[in-house]
Amino acid sequence: NGILCRALKTKNPPSFTVGKTFQLDDIIEAQQFDRDILNAIFEVARDMEKIEKNSSGSQILKGYLMATLFYEPSTRTRLSFESAMKRLGGEVLTTENAREFSSAAKGETLEDTVRTVEGYSDIIVMRHFECGAAKRAAATAGIPIINAGDGPGQHPTQALLDVYTIEREIGKLDGIKVGLVGDLANGRTVRSLAYLLAKYKDVKIYFVSPDVVKMKDDIKDYLTSMGVEWEESADLMDVANKCDVVYQTRIQRERFGERTDLYEEARGKYIVDSRVLEVMPKHAVVMHPLPRLDEITVDVDADPRAAYFRQAKNGLYIRMALLKLLLLGW
Amino acid sequence: NGILCRALKTKNPPSFTVGKTFQLDDIIEAQQFDRDILNAIFEVARDMEKIEKNSSGSQILKGYLMATLFYEPSTRTRLSFESAMKRLGGEVLTTENAREFSSAAKGETLEDTVRTVEGYSDIIVMRHFECGAAKRAAATAGIPIINAGDGPGQHPTQALLDVYTIEREIGKLDGIKVGLVGDLANGRTVRSLAYLLAKYKDVKIYFVSPDVVKMKDDIKDYLTSMGVEWEESADLMDVANKCDVVYQTRIQRERFGERTDLYEEARGKYIVDSRVLEVMPKHAVVMHPLPRLDEITVDVDADPRAAYFRQAKNGLYIRMALLKLLLLGW
Amino acid sequence: NGILCRALKTKNPPSFTVGKTFQLDDIIEAQQFDRDILNAIFEVARDMEKIEKNSSGSQILKGYLMATLFYEPSTRTRLSFESAMKRLGGEVLTTENAREFSSAAKGETLEDTVRTVEGYSDIIVMRHFECGAAKRAAATAGIPIINAGDGPGQHPTQALLDVYTIEREIGKLDGIKVGLVGDLANGRTVRSLAYLLAKYKDVKIYFVSPDVVKMKDDIKDYLTSMGVEWEESADLMDVANKCDVVYQTRIQRERFGERTDLYEEARGKYIVDSRVLEVMPKHAVVMHPLPRLDEITVDVDADPRAAYFRQAKNGLYIRMALLKLLLLGW
Repeated sequence: NGILCRALKTKNPPSFTVGKTFQLDDIIEAQQFDRDILNAIFEVARDMEKIEKNSSGSQILKGYLMATLFYEPSTRTRLSFESAMKRLGGEVLTTENAREFSSAAKGETLEDTVRTVEGYSDIIVMRHFECGAAKRAAATAGIPIINAGDGPGQHPTQALLDVYTIEREIGKLDGIKVGLVGDLANGRTVRSLAYLLAKYKDVKIYFVSPDVVKMKDDIKDYLTSMGVEWEESADLMDVANKCDVVYQTRIQRERFGERTDLYEEARGKYIVDSRVLEVMPKHAVVMHPLPRLDEITVDVDADPRAAYFRQAKNGLYIRMALLKLLLLGW
Repeated sequence: NGILCRALKTKNPPSFTVGKTFQLDDIIEAQQFDRDILNAIFEVARDMEKIEKNSSGSQILKGYLMATLFYEPSTRTRLSFESAMKRLGGEVLTTENAREFSSAAKGETLEDTVRTVEGYSDIIVMRHFECGAAKRAAATAGIPIINAGDGPGQHPTQALLDVYTIEREIGKLDGIKVGLVGDLANGRTVRSLAYLLAKYKDVKIYFVSPDVVKMKDDIKDYLTSMGVEWEESADLMDVANKCDVVYQTRIQRERFGERTDLYEEARGKYIVDSRVLEVMPKHAVVMHPLPRLDEITVDVDADPRAAYFRQAKNGLYIRMALLKLLLLGW
Repeated sequence: NGILCRALKTKNPPSFTVGKTFQLDDIIEAQQFDRDILNAIFEVARDMEKIEKNSSGSQILKGYLMATLFYEPSTRTRLSFESAMKRLGGEVLTTENAREFSSAAKGETLEDTVRTVEGYSDIIVMRHFECGAAKRAAATAGIPIINAGDGPGQHPTQALLDVYTIEREIGKLDGIKVGLVGDLANGRTVRSLAYLLAKYKDVKIYFVSPDVVKMKDDIKDYLTSMGVEWEESADLMDVANKCDVVYQTRIQRERFGERTDLYEEARGKYIVDSRVLEVMPKHAVVMHPLPRLDEITVDVDADPRAAYFRQAKNGLYIRMALLKLLLLGW
């Protein structure tokens, strides 16, 4: 199952049409977004920034109820979605221990659980430990489903906020140069980001990673097929000097099993610190999906090019936009 | 205590009078409802169906605060109550680990906890692992208490939604024929349902269960004393052919201790599947308190007579009605 | 760290000025309150009692979002804050397992967590297991932080509600006579209360405790330096006969390690029961921060002088007042 379930299968066509009748039904995977849909979502997200800054708040989702059905805890993601819903006047039903009323506990199927919860709410945000769970939920439910991460599978709202952040920070996506740094083999974040960037013109991607966690061939082949230039580099300073975006990621100890020596070597190899900042262009930014450990040093935070907390905040705007689009439409 | 605490002691008189001054104070046990009270609650529940379908939502409980004080998790029940409160414009304080600030953790009594929580809320929905806990809470609190399950004791809102569902699905309660199937010895659901059905005229009840989990004598004696016809049957097909309602229940492994052979035999004995549907009358329905395992096969779901997800949804309307009646009165 | 982290360092000056520009920024520790600030908070708290009794509720915090960031569960405190926010029309994001997205789980610093959560909310109520955590959060955050307990450190809203309760119950603070009973060595509650009472005139404090948990010298020296009369007594009856307030506390077993014999001796030594009530003046009250075990017998509850549940309720008014002051100002 871990083998069958790749974070991105890159052959699915976009599943929505854009136009006067633009309507999102569910948010399941990065492959469902084409360039027009991304533009439409980002336009609504920019409106959401204005709403959130207006202290009296919006009430456009008043009377709507969102259920956060989390089969594994992810406080950061959950709070972001719940904040988004409440900033728009909506209400939330929370469950962080959905396993308890699920198959794991009493043998109920995911489908049965979804049929029950859809009776209590207007939209379900689901986090699950199994790849494909969100798609199964969407096939069952008569209300919209948002995938907030399905195990080794996808986390599409993270991918959206990453692309949105690049556009907000750099002012463009066509012609962008992005360095992806860290664990490129296991990080679903960087895989989805690479996939979405391929929808834009003249994009150049640099992969910077320890040997044991290099980007896999499926994404490289896909980029090549889409005409995206990419190269692998062992020199973070050189890449930082050329890029608009240095996208750093955390190297996760659990990926290395008992080879803690390899982990320690990999983890210390590419650190974004003040020396990296020195060679970066003035307009460039450092991004990170958070949480970070020491792969970005704390002194970087004070630099205006440290974009990672703004990036986290953009997650709020993207999620507000998606809730609006799914519940009220365009 | 397990012996003293029977799910139903059938001698208590109804504790409310109906009329212009109809007022529910607490929801503690099935015995507190007579036919007039059931009718009144069902009338309000039908109004709630209309409110819930109106997307702008109701605000009749705006400014009211419900505390869900759960000493053991029950996500399904909790979400149903919280959805009911929010659908009416009310607000919720949630705690799923009430044990933590209770006697189990620091030695505080239930009464002290209730006295504190009633200072923060307008109504308490309580789930507890001890029989009688809701009654103790109601004796202490100056605000309404709803029993959302007290261990081996009662779960009165489930009993109400079951009767409500039969009326909604079949259109009557007098003259109804109901087959209760599965674990009749331990299921508080079927015991409460049998008790409430006895309030209606010309009711016929069939008990269909493996020998080891047969309906106990107290309920049989009560039905006899109330003039309710009942019989035990080993033939599900025959019963399904005659009944308006086939009420299936889950057989719980934990009831069988180390006798897993008996469990496996009992659990496979009475399955509701397409063959059962074939002999059921067209107007009849299949009910189940959920979650189900394989005692109803998944292919049954597509049949319009599969009423169990509508039944779960009716739980929302019943709980909306109870919150309205307890907080605003008739 | 346990040694460095005293519940009260008594040399910090008050950090706010009162007047037309009175503005609270954060609630971190008892030392930040002087007499004028206490008066101002109590004045707003009295207004809040009126708002809470008005069933239609207040909407003054409509559109505001409070995050309860609890690194250790404390259901009682959390519910009190969440009720306060909702009684004023505000909304809440809840997390009881903040450790999961914190350093303990993935190595993220408290500062990074706060920077993320402040993007989703307007105010953070934080409970942490480390002394000084709230102060660090306040140094990082651009939004107000309320300390809801930081390990062996402070719990300033408890201290405020205690002083508020004395004023509400007795009608004055100047000239008050207070008996502090129980575990005076470890209880941060009684330490903070003693500290705040020293801001009033002609206060007399009696310390009544088993030898092993006597009040420490730092507080005694501070009281002396502030001109507060205090004495230690082994005779609860004599103190109860003289005091306006008998403030009882729980003796915690975990403070005694393996010396359960000392615990059993200490815990049974000073019990507030009907005999204590008999010698107490008619206008006096019994207070307790709750939860209680058997250090106050249950028969005391019926006496009008049992103020501890009113005291818990006052926590709601104080927290409503603080939320109003921090979010809307004076």
